[in-house]
Amino acid sequence: MSDPVMFTLDPSEEVTHWYNIVADLPTPPPPPLHPGTHQPVGPDDLAPLFPMELIAQEVTGERYVEIPEPVLEVYRQYRPSPLYRARRWEQRLGTRARIYYKYEGVSPAGSHKTNTAIPQVYYNVVNGTTRLTTETGAGQWGTALSYACSLFGAECEVWQVGASYDTKPQRRTLIEVFGGKVHRSPSRLTEAGRAFPADHTGSLGIAISEAVEMAAKDEGAKYALGSVLNHVVLHQTVIGEEALRQLAKAGETKVDLVVGCAGGGSNFAGLAFPFLREKLAGTQDPRILAVEPTSCPTLTRGEYRYDFGDTAGLTPLMKMYTLGHDFVPSPIHAGGLRYHGMAPLVSHAVHEGLVEATALHQRECFEAAVEFARTQGVVAAPESSHALAQARREALAATDEQVIVIGLSGHGLLELGAYESFLAGRLEDDVLSDADLDAALAGVPTI
Amino acid sequence: MSDPVMFTLDPSEEVTHWYNIVADLPTPPPPPLHPGTHQPVGPDDLAPLFPMELIAQEVTGERYVEIPEPVLEVYRQYRPSPLYRARRWEQRLGTRARIYYKYEGVSPAGSHKTNTAIPQVYYNVVNGTTRLTTETGAGQWGTALSYACSLFGAECEVWQVGASYDTKPQRRTLIEVFGGKVHRSPSRLTEAGRAFPADHTGSLGIAISEAVEMAAKDEGAKYALGSVLNHVVLHQTVIGEEALRQLAKAGETKVDLVVGCAGGGSNFAGLAFPFLREKLAGTQDPRILAVEPTSCPTLTRGEYRYDFGDTAGLTPLMKMYTLGHDFVPSPIHAGGLRYHGMAPLVSHAVHEGLVEATALHQRECFEAAVEFARTQGVVAAPESSHALAQARREALAATDEQVIVIGLSGHGLLELGAYESFLAGRLEDDVLSDADLDAALAGVPTI
Repeated sequence: MSDPVMFTLDPSEEVTHWYNIVADLPTPPPPPLHPGTHQPVGPDDLAPLFPMELIAQEVTGERYVEIPEPVLEVYRQYRPSPLYRARRWEQRLGTRARIYYKYEGVSPAGSHKTNTAIPQVYYNVVNGTTRLTTETGAGQWGTALSYACSLFGAECEVWQVGASYDTKPQRRTLIEVFGGKVHRSPSRLTEAGRAFPADHTGSLGIAISEAVEMAAKDEGAKYALGSVLNHVVLHQTVIGEEALRQLAKAGETKVDLVVGCAGGGSNFAGLAFPFLREKLAGTQDPRILAVEPTSCPTLTRGEYRYDFGDTAGLTPLMKMYTLGHDFVPSPIHAGGLRYHGMAPLVSHAVHEGLVEATALHQRECFEAAVEFARTQGVVAAPESSHALAQARREALAATDEQVIVIGLSGHGLLELGAYESFLAGRLEDDVLSDADLDAALAGVPTI
Repeated sequence: MSDPVMFTLDPSEEVTHWYNIVADLPTPPPPPLHPGTHQPVGPDDLAPLFPMELIAQEVTGERYVEIPEPVLEVYRQYRPSPLYRARRWEQRLGTRARIYYKYEGVSPAGSHKTNTAIPQVYYNVVNGTTRLTTETGAGQWGTALSYACSLFGAECEVWQVGASYDTKPQRRTLIEVFGGKVHRSPSRLTEAGRAFPADHTGSLGIAISEAVEMAAKDEGAKYALGSVLNHVVLHQTVIGEEALRQLAKAGETKVDLVVGCAGGGSNFAGLAFPFLREKLAGTQDPRILAVEPTSCPTLTRGEYRYDFGDTAGLTPLMKMYTLGHDFVPSPIHAGGLRYHGMAPLVSHAVHEGLVEATALHQRECFEAAVEFARTQGVVAAPESSHALAQARREALAATDEQVIVIGLSGHGLLELGAYESFLAGRLEDDVLSDADLDAALAGVPTI
């Protein structure tokens, strides 16, 4: 029998706690600031939007947070997500590197977003929330929240960025199959939406404002965010915790490279932070590498400053790598990587030199993704293709036996239009110009 | 810890042999006949289209056929497919039945079709085939064959039924991502295609004729079929063999009902035949039930007669339930269930009273599928929704603890347009009229 290529875990090896990197960072990350007073934000400031458990997780210094049993019960429908050895791709590349990928596309919503949607809805419902509002760009987050709401019996309303709503009807249908309600943003339902013409193509910033406004004005409603915040990053660490255990079962106790795509940062951090813990503890010494698109190079060309999380400037100020909250990236297919900022915890780790970052052109990413599909049979999300392309570079450059672990955040079966453009040679590479970058950074507040 | 809901297998429990029901049937199934002589077909008759190993599997009486190691190596990328306990759906239904589903949607091509595409391409390539031709209707089979060809280094050409090609560009793109070449059928490349206007919406019958013609005129090319034939059914039995072992791990040694959708019959047989073996041996006594759409009721309203497998009458005559090879079902979304005939082995088992059959309206099927998605998180293929709807009926009627096993042949992520029609109330139920049935049956040859 040949060596196994798929690694799972026994029920006794189940991950029962999320991991909080804050407990192990050499220096504490700077706190979020109130947009009016510029003083650190307190729990009361966040209470209108989030239930108290999530606020507590946002600020906790505890190393491990127990996963509630009702959340574990849903996790067990798709977790542990499989860890695969990409043996056929290795052969195609002719590399001596051993390449593994942790695949979140098996989740009900098709991406890692389910990992945080489930606990967010759970904590909300046990605290009396009956309705959750959110925004969605690429659509992965709206899908995950809609599914989680259907399980726990909450209503779900999703403001989908107009351009995405118009061009990706399948994504809207999937949210509706799971029971969620979808509004094209800008909608006529909110003041924030009515400030724009009805046929405006929208933006994540506008959609966030609409979802926040709606949650604030309804007693039973709260708002849910799919990335960036500490509690979201916390929930995603189930990915890396599982991966460490699965790698051990594969006989790998020393990883050389951990690589993932980074948009808001939660997918990347979810895989990377448990490895960073090992690195900080000295038990392993992997390079940890975030990959972003050249069209939205937050970590590689942005500045590490306090900035708003949304375009309208309503959220707390967060210390993070940012391109400026007014920044509008050119349309690329990896909708999940088009955020102007980056999770404060990821930003801090990069700033401290614990995590590296690089940016890639999208055609190289799709080229790697097509090669990967033809060998491994998985059609990766355009976001995840960035991790594949960087892993490919590293594997081709490897002269000795390296162990590479890739975070594959989701499948691309609802993004086949992007693959079609690539195969037809219609896909363009985009690079952010210095002038556009300077203009966007000019809007960052001086603190 | 709650009871597990996902069941897998240890490497030592791997299924290493396909199961051949022919060895255990009380009476032998009638042989296929040559379309010209009406004499039983011999291996030489099939040699222009299939490699000798597949022809041998088509006629073998051996109980078990060893799965070649190179095929097992690819199976291991997605097999064993998970067996799930549908605990949340059970709760929603308020049933005492224990419902399990065996989910083939995790395969690279998203359906059970991969199980036979891999060995078919493998046997072809080791026998010198460099190019495989086939037809595809819904698109699942073309996708699976394209993926398998990319692994073993063969070219793949797919004739996609015109109506499907025009309305499902994502399916075509997916075949191309895996490296296959897609032609709209009727194409200008074959005589069979040129007999129809270029803008004709096509049919599976025409597409089969085109693929067969192309394979016959190229020395290195062979033809591959995705259902109906004995060797295809054989390859799919890996599903049922795994399910039996997984159920044992779940503590279930006595199943009351095995239910699957049936189009050409290979998905249904793949799950059902290992259970039928146990039934014939007296170790278990499950009801075994095939579900088809009312718009294409082959088993429930067709006749058990010798008929052609294709519209043009070029294939051998097979004894099977048929609606007549001229039959054109009204357009329903479950494209994979629109075949006029049924696998001879499934037909024989139904005729002998070993397997039951029933037909359902599609709106009831989608209703069950939406409920299933909202509880289990899996968006089923429209074909698979027929099995869900029938299982739902049985579970709601169950007064004691029943064990129900559902074959879930694939995901429906490329069929969200059908879900959208259902949710918008635009989906119609179709029933085949007696007059249309009589007209179609009139074309069946008298033998």
